[in-house]
Amino acid sequence: MSSPLRLGIAGLGTVGVGTVRIVQNQAELLKARTGREIAISAVSARSRDLDRGIRIADYDWADDPASMAIRDDVDVFVELMGGADGVARRATEAAIAAGKHVVTANKALLAVHGQALGEAAERSGVSIRYEAAVAGGIPCIKALSEGLAGNEITRVMGVMNGTCNYILTRMQSASLDYQTVFAECEQLGYLEADPSLDVGGIDAGHKLAILVALAFGTKVDFDAVHIEGIERISIEDIEQAADMGFRIKLLGVAQRTGHGIEARMSPCLVPAESPLGQLEGASNMIVLEGDSVGQVVLQGAGAGEGPTASAIIGDICDLARGSARPVFGMPAGELAVARRTDGAAPAAYYLRMQLVDRPGALAKIAAVLGDAGISINRMRQYRHKEATAPVLIVTHEAQQEALDTAIANMDGTGVLASAPVAIRIEKV
Amino acid sequence: MSSPLRLGIAGLGTVGVGTVRIVQNQAELLKARTGREIAISAVSARSRDLDRGIRIADYDWADDPASMAIRDDVDVFVELMGGADGVARRATEAAIAAGKHVVTANKALLAVHGQALGEAAERSGVSIRYEAAVAGGIPCIKALSEGLAGNEITRVMGVMNGTCNYILTRMQSASLDYQTVFAECEQLGYLEADPSLDVGGIDAGHKLAILVALAFGTKVDFDAVHIEGIERISIEDIEQAADMGFRIKLLGVAQRTGHGIEARMSPCLVPAESPLGQLEGASNMIVLEGDSVGQVVLQGAGAGEGPTASAIIGDICDLARGSARPVFGMPAGELAVARRTDGAAPAAYYLRMQLVDRPGALAKIAAVLGDAGISINRMRQYRHKEATAPVLIVTHEAQQEALDTAIANMDGTGVLASAPVAIRIEKV
Repeated sequence: MSSPLRLGIAGLGTVGVGTVRIVQNQAELLKARTGREIAISAVSARSRDLDRGIRIADYDWADDPASMAIRDDVDVFVELMGGADGVARRATEAAIAAGKHVVTANKALLAVHGQALGEAAERSGVSIRYEAAVAGGIPCIKALSEGLAGNEITRVMGVMNGTCNYILTRMQSASLDYQTVFAECEQLGYLEADPSLDVGGIDAGHKLAILVALAFGTKVDFDAVHIEGIERISIEDIEQAADMGFRIKLLGVAQRTGHGIEARMSPCLVPAESPLGQLEGASNMIVLEGDSVGQVVLQGAGAGEGPTASAIIGDICDLARGSARPVFGMPAGELAVARRTDGAAPAAYYLRMQLVDRPGALAKIAAVLGDAGISINRMRQYRHKEATAPVLIVTHEAQQEALDTAIANMDGTGVLASAPVAIRIEKV
Repeated sequence: MSSPLRLGIAGLGTVGVGTVRIVQNQAELLKARTGREIAISAVSARSRDLDRGIRIADYDWADDPASMAIRDDVDVFVELMGGADGVARRATEAAIAAGKHVVTANKALLAVHGQALGEAAERSGVSIRYEAAVAGGIPCIKALSEGLAGNEITRVMGVMNGTCNYILTRMQSASLDYQTVFAECEQLGYLEADPSLDVGGIDAGHKLAILVALAFGTKVDFDAVHIEGIERISIEDIEQAADMGFRIKLLGVAQRTGHGIEARMSPCLVPAESPLGQLEGASNMIVLEGDSVGQVVLQGAGAGEGPTASAIIGDICDLARGSARPVFGMPAGELAVARRTDGAAPAAYYLRMQLVDRPGALAKIAAVLGDAGISINRMRQYRHKEATAPVLIVTHEAQQEALDTAIANMDGTGVLASAPVAIRIEKV
């Protein structure tokens, strides 16, 4: 039996408490599986006296996470505070410099400072493990960096923010508009303190940035992820998409194109009968595509005490067994600079607009699309409401630039009663 | 850069060829990801001269896999021959005794001799890796033994034989009977040389035996898996199950019960809208349930050159990186003897039977069920065909023993025109 693996845990919120709970309740199991005792040397959090429903009196209390991280009796610094900067960053840097492994759930920190942290970890010969940072309990980081290591990854997709998926599926099932469901979520405490992290797609964008680096062997580059939130999704879009056999998801997509690596976190239409289309509620789904393996779909809980702590402990067990892999799948120095691409791969698009009730209005729109080289797959005109007619168009595959041109030119037709809504239809 | 990791590959069928292909085509990627060159020292197969579409002239040829396995220039013995005994077993034992790691796709070998091989590997300080043995390209062994290492596993389920799932979904989509689709599969070469390995549930049973050991920390015990094939599934059952919102799947289920560990590979009804119910064609799906993580669902290709080779290479990359874990998740000596249980956990059941056309026939059947303490959830009597009436019953949750008693007692009622078909409805 080897010596114990000793943890210093910073952050005792939901995930921290869940982590301590597993270490305490599953001590025998963890020892049998890793050959070592998993021990907690010290913990740190904002408030010492809060009753968290777990016993922490046996562990040293540290007021400063950064000092705790470098203690002699800490082998692994477990960072569960969050935030791209501030104390989380400072303590993680200190831990790495002191030769400690890091296990973290902090997607923002890795998305923004991942490359520098990865390089520092390599210099110190330590690991940074972050299964919990992406899709909670789903072991997708492990699948991508280990299980699929023999593959050239061709595409990564996923629903990575449970709150957004909850909002979109709740809108559909209860036929409620965005504002109503958003207010419900606020009341239920489902949203981050800054809700734009969730509904603005930023949290999910952080996760996608990490997956892109791992999948394509590039330096983490959060700024290269194109991000759109779900705020503009209306109940009309959800219902009309459903009517044509689609669901709207906040979908992360990353793939190689001729112009570089495309990475988008944005609302997309997916076929209702596809695994992504069928994902309901707060679940997460990660779709990995490799040249040999084809498509692998992983589904599970993307957040919550148990699932996220499960991922933290999985990483800790790996470290206890001595397993090591480069932070982003290959040596930091070999990671390429991601060639950023603004253009997306060609796709079919869903278009919704209101036209003024005038003969030839629809023909004018069709002509603008035709002039931009975009052909129409399906078109529906609904019954007039007052003086305007709702029109729905599904295009054949088109370049995004062509679509942007067409939409810009629609303005000049004089038949638009409202600005067109365009949503990409992702092939899944 | 460390020294190369040198492979000896035995078996150059589909998976062997796929493995060689990835080693050749992705050499740079594998080196970047593992920090080592992955090299092939020698290969072995039945016929040396067959054109396999890959270049093997650069590798030493070995007529005897067992001699190849112990060569000084082989670090990892890659066993892709198959079969629980014979040369595959002999060569694997030789490799382990000579201190070589083993990577294998051989589910039969592990299901039958896994415990002895695991103990031998432990004595020799080597790894046996077998991601490819279960569910092809889906990294489920890794998810279970590493990603979910912090969980007490509560249940494992899955569709693990693509051919059976293909047959069952093809029967439904084309409204064909079992014999017709079976004949199609034979003609298309979808079946093993001995088809009962597929349709008799044995191949899938081997896989479940391996998952059970890993999930519950017990010695691999193929004999403790209760196995039923799909041969008795009729198109009537498939259509009537569909009519009530279910799909029939050859489903592996393993869970702790009060009487020990229940492990069954058998046809089951699952809700049509569940992930398992929606699994079409030759795909595989593994559902893992842990006390912390909840439910994780993994889906992908369960067979084929690329997916299976992807799993083989994933294991090789792990070994190249120096990662080590006990063969069945914990030291072989700590694996418990699985307490075998014949009784399954209580479940609802689907019952189909033909009753003679006589007043009170249905009442007699209902009475027999009631006497056995089984209550009826739904019952349908269809239009009479000639002198018999098809009857369909969905029970509430019942003990399997009670159901067996009831079915035995139905015989004495004199109203049965054919023996009842009973299929378990699994909660998923």
